Amino acid sequence: MSAIPEDFIRRTAQVSNAVTRPFPNSRKVFVQGTRPDLRVPMREVIQQPTHTSTATEDNPAITIYDTSGPYTDPSAEIDLLRGLPAVRTAWIKERGDTSVLDGPTSDYGRSRAADPALAALRFAHIRVPRRALSGRNVTQMHYARRGIVTPEMEFVAIRENCRLAEMRADPRYTRLLRSHAGEAFGARIPDEITPEFVRAEVAAGRAIIPANINHPELEPMIIGRNFRVKVNTNIGNSAVTSSIEEEVEKLVWSARWGGDTLMDLSTGRNIHETREWILRNSPVPIGTVPIYQTLEKVDGKAEELTWELFRDTLIEQAEQGVDYFTIHAGVRLPYVPLTADRVTGIVSRGGSIMAKWCLAHHRENFLYTRFAEICEIMKAYDVSFSLGDGLRPGCIADANDRAQFAELETLGELTRIAWEHDVQVMIEGPGHVPLHKVKENVDKELADCYEAPFYTLGPLVTDIAPAYDHITSGIGAANIGWYGTAMLCYVTPKEHLGLPNREDVRDGIITYRIAAHAADLAKGFPGAQLRDNALSKARFEFRWEDQFNLSLDPERAREYHDQTLPKEAHKVAHFCSMCGPNFCSMKITQDVRDYAARQGLDEHEALERGMQEKASEFVAKGGALYREI
Amino acid sequence: MSAIPEDFIRRTAQVSNAVTRPFPNSRKVFVQGTRPDLRVPMREVIQQPTHTSTATEDNPAITIYDTSGPYTDPSAEIDLLRGLPAVRTAWIKERGDTSVLDGPTSDYGRSRAADPALAALRFAHIRVPRRALSGRNVTQMHYARRGIVTPEMEFVAIRENCRLAEMRADPRYTRLLRSHAGEAFGARIPDEITPEFVRAEVAAGRAIIPANINHPELEPMIIGRNFRVKVNTNIGNSAVTSSIEEEVEKLVWSARWGGDTLMDLSTGRNIHETREWILRNSPVPIGTVPIYQTLEKVDGKAEELTWELFRDTLIEQAEQGVDYFTIHAGVRLPYVPLTADRVTGIVSRGGSIMAKWCLAHHRENFLYTRFAEICEIMKAYDVSFSLGDGLRPGCIADANDRAQFAELETLGELTRIAWEHDVQVMIEGPGHVPLHKVKENVDKELADCYEAPFYTLGPLVTDIAPAYDHITSGIGAANIGWYGTAMLCYVTPKEHLGLPNREDVRDGIITYRIAAHAADLAKGFPGAQLRDNALSKARFEFRWEDQFNLSLDPERAREYHDQTLPKEAHKVAHFCSMCGPNFCSMKITQDVRDYAARQGLDEHEALERGMQEKASEFVAKGGALYREI
Repeated sequence: MSAIPEDFIRRTAQVSNAVTRPFPNSRKVFVQGTRPDLRVPMREVIQQPTHTSTATEDNPAITIYDTSGPYTDPSAEIDLLRGLPAVRTAWIKERGDTSVLDGPTSDYGRSRAADPALAALRFAHIRVPRRALSGRNVTQMHYARRGIVTPEMEFVAIRENCRLAEMRADPRYTRLLRSHAGEAFGARIPDEITPEFVRAEVAAGRAIIPANINHPELEPMIIGRNFRVKVNTNIGNSAVTSSIEEEVEKLVWSARWGGDTLMDLSTGRNIHETREWILRNSPVPIGTVPIYQTLEKVDGKAEELTWELFRDTLIEQAEQGVDYFTIHAGVRLPYVPLTADRVTGIVSRGGSIMAKWCLAHHRENFLYTRFAEICEIMKAYDVSFSLGDGLRPGCIADANDRAQFAELETLGELTRIAWEHDVQVMIEGPGHVPLHKVKENVDKELADCYEAPFYTLGPLVTDIAPAYDHITSGIGAANIGWYGTAMLCYVTPKEHLGLPNREDVRDGIITYRIAAHAADLAKGFPGAQLRDNALSKARFEFRWEDQFNLSLDPERAREYHDQTLPKEAHKVAHFCSMCGPNFCSMKITQDVRDYAARQGLDEHEALERGMQEKASEFVAKGGALYREI
Repeated sequence: MSAIPEDFIRRTAQVSNAVTRPFPNSRKVFVQGTRPDLRVPMREVIQQPTHTSTATEDNPAITIYDTSGPYTDPSAEIDLLRGLPAVRTAWIKERGDTSVLDGPTSDYGRSRAADPALAALRFAHIRVPRRALSGRNVTQMHYARRGIVTPEMEFVAIRENCRLAEMRADPRYTRLLRSHAGEAFGARIPDEITPEFVRAEVAAGRAIIPANINHPELEPMIIGRNFRVKVNTNIGNSAVTSSIEEEVEKLVWSARWGGDTLMDLSTGRNIHETREWILRNSPVPIGTVPIYQTLEKVDGKAEELTWELFRDTLIEQAEQGVDYFTIHAGVRLPYVPLTADRVTGIVSRGGSIMAKWCLAHHRENFLYTRFAEICEIMKAYDVSFSLGDGLRPGCIADANDRAQFAELETLGELTRIAWEHDVQVMIEGPGHVPLHKVKENVDKELADCYEAPFYTLGPLVTDIAPAYDHITSGIGAANIGWYGTAMLCYVTPKEHLGLPNREDVRDGIITYRIAAHAADLAKGFPGAQLRDNALSKARFEFRWEDQFNLSLDPERAREYHDQTLPKEAHKVAHFCSMCGPNFCSMKITQDVRDYAARQGLDEHEALERGMQEKASEFVAKGGALYREI
């Protein structure tokens, strides 16, 4: 990173404008919780009325789960140089089980703070870290198991519901709330998510709320199979390319398009400073793979890794506010030879690092042997485990093999240990899996890991489409989400080929929002179908603007429409460019539907009765229903 | 269409260069059948050798199913103005059951042929149509049921196998042919596809070979659930935009990227002339929806449609060579009111036209009442039925409702009638269906339609992603293909928004090739995993060129790679831009793998035995395996 501060300020300001523009016809709304400082942000899409020749029908606003944070709030003052407001600080302080430290306690954190050469890169308003008081445990799981409903739990309950109870009580939503019953494969999704339900799920380990006490800027969210399926995005610089300002821009961009959490996978220079910029500006939980940075500290020589260096890295990152750590503690020494006959061996970076260490020292993975000590650190800051699948398959041929499943069984063993410490856990999953082998992954994870939330990368259902791996993996992701995966780690079109740019990130996130929503629909998540119903009604009624605005990517929907029919008048046209004005099935079918609806006939009646009279009436009426442009 | 011929010739020549460029490191190969004029084209991808410090291993060529026709054959002379060679003419003539007519027998075909104003648009080398001799039946099903294995059947048998038997006998392919067992949900895919198996499947109605005797340019292909899953693409002009040369370009483009069949859905001007250009230049079967053109003949007034006009259109198109007709004969009068409570009514163009006709006349759909007469036309030219799903759901809310399933049951009834005439049939399916309701569609189709091949549009698994509906539908397509759908109708990113351009068509086809291949893998189609295994081995060994060349879209894979690492030297680099040169899991894991493989340890042994000695050896060896750039 060679940028000087002035340059960074200027470029950051530009970023801010480009990625925070408001969504069309939307407004930020806040649902008030039981305390004044608990306000849950959502996005409301305002709809246009439906005009017919005889009447005008209002279409109610549709509330959408909103991951974008203050960036899409026109009343918020965004200043990336200061970071976001610390909305959770009061909640954390009130619990009275933490103290503010004198400064970073990790060796590395102290040395970076003291290095004058880093002044130009350093975030200007670094908060002094907070830690649990001696003997105290500050995890959401710990509170949940003691019967405490935290503000974080109430926040996610309100957030998951997205005003469903309110809409159910409002007759304007009755038809829009029609929905198929789901097939949830044993998930038990309640009709309404209550704070108490959230608490019970977190206590049982079936859900986690990643929320480090040093990340008070966070808007809490929950990961569990009885909640909405979530999407994680990855960013990160590497030795080859990228820089701090690009990474911050990607964070804001990711939150904008629907990333629920974000992993900073940086492996290049100035990882510590980049992370501070990201955390201070992030409304979503941030995850990391601490072994990456530890490896940098030993100049990339896996065999020189030590527990002491790793431990120092965990503390360094926990005190910055990282919400979950991927830790490859399941890559046990005896499992490594199981990968020998694979087509693509070990493809997880963390997995291969630990495998190399194990073989070099002929010793058991220190992440495994030191696991209880890691738990002690996690619970002092409430960092959640994301137990890494270091032996995940890197191709179709290697899917569901003994190496993969041996590690998964070990992750179950580690889950039990973490839970003895009241530390929150999710389990990472594959990778590359053919469609018919996907469900086995979920079933085995639920069984072996005691229903701890599953968090999977894709999986890609074929290896033959580099440049389209957002799609190959989106197919797997929709299925695995349906079967019970709680969070889907996105894949961009550049997977296997290069580092994603901004548009790749957008394509990846939207693909995964599709997969997550498809899974929610299939599971029958209450209210999930509302947005589909509203958009389809808008589509049927030629309300083009509403169709765009209700979609996952209003800007691209409009752009694609306008490539064929650019004029504003076409936005109220009762046809589209697919078929032209005189050949529109929607137009024809509205005649049919209006006729048939008035008859109230069912199939049997229609067969029995003559309909000549009504038919004549229909023909006489013609196309008069339509509003001409 | 205002183009003058000179302009068309010039523009066509440009098209020809742009869309026919050869695939990198590939060669066209032909597998010889039992007769000299039966040569089945395939594409062979040449691989580079694998270099290690101690040895060089050759990697064998990989044979790929090839839909691109003569356009990618450097020895073929392509002249769109003359059309493709008529490879099937001898086969058709030899059967001795057809005669060449004096000219078109449809009124419309004759009037267009006689119209001097159309000279500028007209294809210059129109062949005189052929028809079955009186009392004869020329369908592939008819031959199959008489025990005759036609050259078309042998062609598709060779094509489906893709030289699998040859590779199985070659030890260089042994590891590459490793494969998971599939889950085929009752499909019975043999270990090798023989001509006799093809005959039996066509005779049973479980597969069709769409191959009009007036489309001798066709390279035969088969659609059935015991064969590779196929992909259909749609093109077509409309009153709003597009022209003949654009449509021909899209055809070549579609075949290039993997479209197995193509539907010409034109609804604009000069449909007849456009179709001639398409057919004469098409190596893939062409489908149409004849009611569209019939409606043009009555100026868009559905209520003025007549059986006589429709019949004339069928003959007109059959004599041009259309291989399959979508016919909405299942939209029965009593089913129309069943759509009244839907969110999006009737969304099929053909369905809404027929519904409007039925209601206007209060009469049963003439396509239903005249079905046996339609069969008489179909069997005189071997046009296959694609029985249209006019009442398919247009949104998630309407999926699997009574209207949809009532029509499907009628399609089963019509299938039986068609089969009494030995006419080939496939059944069209939805549409918009949530993931958990997809399988019911296949199960019901197989039961109600006696295992006639299913041909589905997507289905889209959510309504909320206009501009990304290739992806929403690709998810549904992969699943429905796995469950037993024989052919998937593609959807482009412009679905619901506008007409697709060339890049949209490419995105749509690649997405659907992914879905079809994912389904083949899940069903366990013999040899399907070969390409995945080869590509993954290339990926693991940093053979970048092979990774690109084996992929579904070599050009885009290379382009994306080069956006980050453009230099040619990077194509042999043992790292990628994702992690950089010193942080590559593939690089690390190769050390691990080499070590472990030589030990031949299993999990139990490893747990029992000390490995100190081997570990030291491993560390000493370091990274010496790698070829430096």
